[in-house]
Amino acid sequence: MISYFNGQFLQQKDIAISPNDRGFLMGDGVYEVIRSYHGHLFELDAHIERLCDGAKALQFNFSTFNELKDIAGQLILKNKLAQQDATVYIQVTRGVAKRSHKFPPSDTPLTIYASVKKFTPSHITNGISATLYPDARWERCNIKSINLIVNSMAHQYAIDSGTQEAIFIRNGYLTEGAHTNVLMVKNKTIMTPPATNFILDGITRKVVLSICHIHNIPVKECSIAEKELFDADELMIVGTTVEILSVIMLNNQPINDGKPGPFTIKLQRLFHDIIKRQ
Amino acid sequence: MISYFNGQFLQQKDIAISPNDRGFLMGDGVYEVIRSYHGHLFELDAHIERLCDGAKALQFNFSTFNELKDIAGQLILKNKLAQQDATVYIQVTRGVAKRSHKFPPSDTPLTIYASVKKFTPSHITNGISATLYPDARWERCNIKSINLIVNSMAHQYAIDSGTQEAIFIRNGYLTEGAHTNVLMVKNKTIMTPPATNFILDGITRKVVLSICHIHNIPVKECSIAEKELFDADELMIVGTTVEILSVIMLNNQPINDGKPGPFTIKLQRLFHDIIKRQ
Repeated sequence: MISYFNGQFLQQKDIAISPNDRGFLMGDGVYEVIRSYHGHLFELDAHIERLCDGAKALQFNFSTFNELKDIAGQLILKNKLAQQDATVYIQVTRGVAKRSHKFPPSDTPLTIYASVKKFTPSHITNGISATLYPDARWERCNIKSINLIVNSMAHQYAIDSGTQEAIFIRNGYLTEGAHTNVLMVKNKTIMTPPATNFILDGITRKVVLSICHIHNIPVKECSIAEKELFDADELMIVGTTVEILSVIMLNNQPINDGKPGPFTIKLQRLFHDIIKRQ
Repeated sequence: MISYFNGQFLQQKDIAISPNDRGFLMGDGVYEVIRSYHGHLFELDAHIERLCDGAKALQFNFSTFNELKDIAGQLILKNKLAQQDATVYIQVTRGVAKRSHKFPPSDTPLTIYASVKKFTPSHITNGISATLYPDARWERCNIKSINLIVNSMAHQYAIDSGTQEAIFIRNGYLTEGAHTNVLMVKNKTIMTPPATNFILDGITRKVVLSICHIHNIPVKECSIAEKELFDADELMIVGTTVEILSVIMLNNQPINDGKPGPFTIKLQRLFHDIIKRQ
């Protein structure tokens, strides 16, 4: 596969990251994963905008990441993926500099790396199982940083527990999944934690909430205690790679009757309608 | 300078980190910085032990990092630094694998990278100024991971504020410095937060506490509220690079009379005695 690195399109094996890259030494970077549906990059502007917001929050020296939109499109074309589904990965780090907690000089170029891969559908139709995991992440989870140790450990723990996703609990309350947002249905209302600094303001989350708005499905953004999750009528995870999936088992306990519920099925259908219209 | 990378000693410019290294993509690594005093690696065993503990906590696949002791020594020799002061940097990541939150297959080799640089003394003798900063880091600060965004942002903020170190406050209480531990003197007692998951169990911290023990200086490991710091008789930061430094100004307010106090000066002397005996 052809990837992108600091101005060049290269075979991935020919890309050499410096050991002094702040990404490698300090996890000092932000990233995005963008779905391409038959060559159409879904919500590309929103992803690039979020990348900008993260870079700004971390005080990166940049003017705009608009060229990344073009790079994402080129990766699809150069790898002949315009007729297939794919995901584009983009990562920006604070660049290469002598190791120091201090920021590098302001004229240090950022490192920009992007790659693409074919998307393999998961064939999950009947819902997934999930496992609760303590949310030990930093307090700026609204920044999509490459500091992913806890997410990775949580996800591996979920897999080792025979499930497909970890759901974070911080101080007794739901935050989000290890790589998804979590929505609950209770009394015909969609409930999800508000987009504070403790969750990533997911783009699929936003799309789903706007679908709810358009279709008059009540939404409540509010704190959700751990024990409320087990009493949910429906539970779902949403995200760029999973789209919308029903969570039918949580910590080995069935949610409601252990089957995908009507709200989840309806939202999946409406979400796919949007994708088909692209 | 000659560095070390996965079994080879190479010029640093010839080291190519894969863009699929989990260090670069996910901050999935641990590190150590070790002082070499005229070729003697100070507390080398303790540093390697801490690296092992971190790798274990992150479920890395490894047997022992004992070969790293030899690598550190070789870096000093190959770069002809045995007659000078230097710092050795060692980083271990979970290796190279297709990007996924899931851990790589268990036979994936870890990435091992190490470098050395001459130590430049700071010539600070009369104490430093420090700035308080909210501790937004993850809840496993006892693991010396390469997830250093908050540490870096805090340190830069301290510099931008005209000071030399940031001191973290979590929920109104002292944790530690952005790259040091913090000790306070009050009523002839050394006080410092206990080594919980919210601070790094610093090696210089341990050495200083053992000096106190040997010399019958009372030590109390306890919570220290933000406002107590301003009432300290003395405040100091300790760490591998700074050794022991007096903090004489905090958020622009002098600590006591704004001069290094007798406990700090005594501990500095006793610490240097240990180094000289190496």
